Amino acid sequence: MTAYRTLDPEGVKRFLAARRELAERLGGEAQDWTVREVSDGNLNLVFLVFGTTGRLCVKQSLPHVRVDPDWKMPLDRTAFEAAWLRRIEPLVPGLTPAFLDFDPEQFVLTMECLDGFVTLREALTNGADPIAPSRILGGFVARSAFLTSYLAQPFEAVTPDLAFFSGNTTLTRITVDLVLTDPYREHPRNHWLPALDADVAAMRSDPQIIARIGALQERFLTTPQALLHGDLHSGSIMIADHDVRVIDGEFSLYGPIGFDCGLYLAHLALAHAATTDAPRKESLAAAIKAFWRTFCVDFLHLWKTQAHGADLYVPTTFSNALHELDALRTRFINGVFHDAVGFAAAEIVRRLIGYAQTSDFDHIQGQQSKADRQRVALSFACALLRDAPADIDAFTEMLHPQANLRITTLPETT
Amino acid sequence: MTAYRTLDPEGVKRFLAARRELAERLGGEAQDWTVREVSDGNLNLVFLVFGTTGRLCVKQSLPHVRVDPDWKMPLDRTAFEAAWLRRIEPLVPGLTPAFLDFDPEQFVLTMECLDGFVTLREALTNGADPIAPSRILGGFVARSAFLTSYLAQPFEAVTPDLAFFSGNTTLTRITVDLVLTDPYREHPRNHWLPALDADVAAMRSDPQIIARIGALQERFLTTPQALLHGDLHSGSIMIADHDVRVIDGEFSLYGPIGFDCGLYLAHLALAHAATTDAPRKESLAAAIKAFWRTFCVDFLHLWKTQAHGADLYVPTTFSNALHELDALRTRFINGVFHDAVGFAAAEIVRRLIGYAQTSDFDHIQGQQSKADRQRVALSFACALLRDAPADIDAFTEMLHPQANLRITTLPETT
Repeated sequence: MTAYRTLDPEGVKRFLAARRELAERLGGEAQDWTVREVSDGNLNLVFLVFGTTGRLCVKQSLPHVRVDPDWKMPLDRTAFEAAWLRRIEPLVPGLTPAFLDFDPEQFVLTMECLDGFVTLREALTNGADPIAPSRILGGFVARSAFLTSYLAQPFEAVTPDLAFFSGNTTLTRITVDLVLTDPYREHPRNHWLPALDADVAAMRSDPQIIARIGALQERFLTTPQALLHGDLHSGSIMIADHDVRVIDGEFSLYGPIGFDCGLYLAHLALAHAATTDAPRKESLAAAIKAFWRTFCVDFLHLWKTQAHGADLYVPTTFSNALHELDALRTRFINGVFHDAVGFAAAEIVRRLIGYAQTSDFDHIQGQQSKADRQRVALSFACALLRDAPADIDAFTEMLHPQANLRITTLPETT
Repeated sequence: MTAYRTLDPEGVKRFLAARRELAERLGGEAQDWTVREVSDGNLNLVFLVFGTTGRLCVKQSLPHVRVDPDWKMPLDRTAFEAAWLRRIEPLVPGLTPAFLDFDPEQFVLTMECLDGFVTLREALTNGADPIAPSRILGGFVARSAFLTSYLAQPFEAVTPDLAFFSGNTTLTRITVDLVLTDPYREHPRNHWLPALDADVAAMRSDPQIIARIGALQERFLTTPQALLHGDLHSGSIMIADHDVRVIDGEFSLYGPIGFDCGLYLAHLALAHAATTDAPRKESLAAAIKAFWRTFCVDFLHLWKTQAHGADLYVPTTFSNALHELDALRTRFINGVFHDAVGFAAAEIVRRLIGYAQTSDFDHIQGQQSKADRQRVALSFACALLRDAPADIDAFTEMLHPQANLRITTLPETT
């Protein structure tokens, strides 16, 4: 047992050289290997390692937030990411990096190298097709959620994972605070463009919005429907050609399925607000619909074909109520949609005015233009929180700024 | 470490004599002690032990169902009962037996002796006042549920208990199967009076009822609002004069608060159906209202005064939405009521036609009279499942047989 030490490129080589199976994958000797640090999140070190015959990705937890070394972080989150990856990989073959190794003393996760991939966020900013990956991600969420849920198996198969992932309190605390609480109150971690002052004040004094956020806090903490990714934004997704991979499962926990759906929808909506190009907007709106429809179709198909032995909606009790079973399935999906709408809104809000913002608006020239685009996104989010759309078509209709005039005009006219 | 052995009265003496603190409570020597076996459940041995200066209650898990030795049972459920007792006792002072000791090798829980107490079921059958204990139990459920919930504390304080009690799969399996599934399908463990054949068939072919049971399965497994007792029937409650104690927390788990409420309401409703005495019926209906109203008042009072640091409905976000916070609290309580109604119905059904029935109807002379009273109870339960009452007054109105004519007449007229 060795004490935890933060890795540097030489340390990465020593770490891998000491692990025969990983070293053999790289090929050659340690001095032949190239290490490239690609850390860009706030919580981890990430290295890509290139050998003579293979390559690897090495990820290690940092003991503090990168930009704020006083904000200490327990190291165990890589353990949750490793557990998530091992649990999810067989359920969604080809849609995650391959798990290779986890070292619980150095909190080092070694996995397939996704060199040549870029984040979906970067790809979207550069004009990549949003529809094809969104369809794939709809299927990813459907499979990973359904197959880890109570709908797919006896409850005894769920509770050990529920118990384990409920220990992931460090990163769940971040979601509870930074996504679902702080943006709706004064907090030094919040920040936004001064031009949005009135919008933020109006949002915080809107009782409907505050009530909806309260209800979402309850849904997030007390609805363990399935094992969630927990941070499914466009920076947690890597793409290359037609290959899509979901990474960074360190926020994983049992929660409402709509949380994963909502985060993904939020980031398509942010990209939509950040562009002024009409065909591009149409394409992002189509991607939103493609994600949701694929999720629904795949989730329902799994439910109808792979629910053997589950304790919910037990088929042997429903022989005289097949129509009602269909209705219950629709109600379940509608419930996921309602959650998704709320969590999408909360994610958009926090990416505009909370601690960890998004780069989607970085390319916009001029503070005023940037604030205008951000106000469109914030108004959309506030409208979602005030009056939830009934379906995905209504959701995309609300992407048009004129649909959500109230929040953009209210603070300026009163 | 000694192998598990089923205790007999001499074994109980040896067990206690070897534990100094317990032996001292009893006083004198083992040969001075009297042991009385009072086991009457299906899963455990229970002994009351009388010493020269004190007395104790000793409870040990059996490795099988008492009446069916082929139905094996893991022994760990006493561990969950002990954990429940230690967690709940300080929250509801004086409303449980005092916890004294738990031996994890023999699965023996030692606690305060409730000699002189009788079960509430027995007391009700003998005409005891149902209102006073019901008020106390409303307060018990309010305190134990609120103070273990996400409404009372940061989520990190909840998740270790959630993880631990999610391991109580053996007895949760009993609830999932015997309460929420088997009565709605053919199963050899079900049994009922032949006179109820048509009623049972009508219930099972009613799509609304089957759909509601499906929704209740989902609520039970995926709504961990609070630490539940999990089996709060009138046989799990002991009374003596004005003293009320809740025992038998071996079914404890995190779940919907309405489950505990519903089970208690179900057993008052069963007692109501089992009697033909009009003033007694009125008194039981008043007890139902007293339980629910005390629960609501106490739960809301706790929420308004003891929610410091909780992550749900965070007060600092609600400074501009106090009216909405009240509305959300009302909505939460109404949700608990809706759950309670459904679980009450499911409990009534399983006590009439499932594996573990109730003695409430045993005193009735004649099979036909007994079937008639049971039909009233079953019709009430079916009506609750078909059309949930909006409030507790509507619930008690439905206790009158004519309010639920549909189920009693349908099978006989078609």
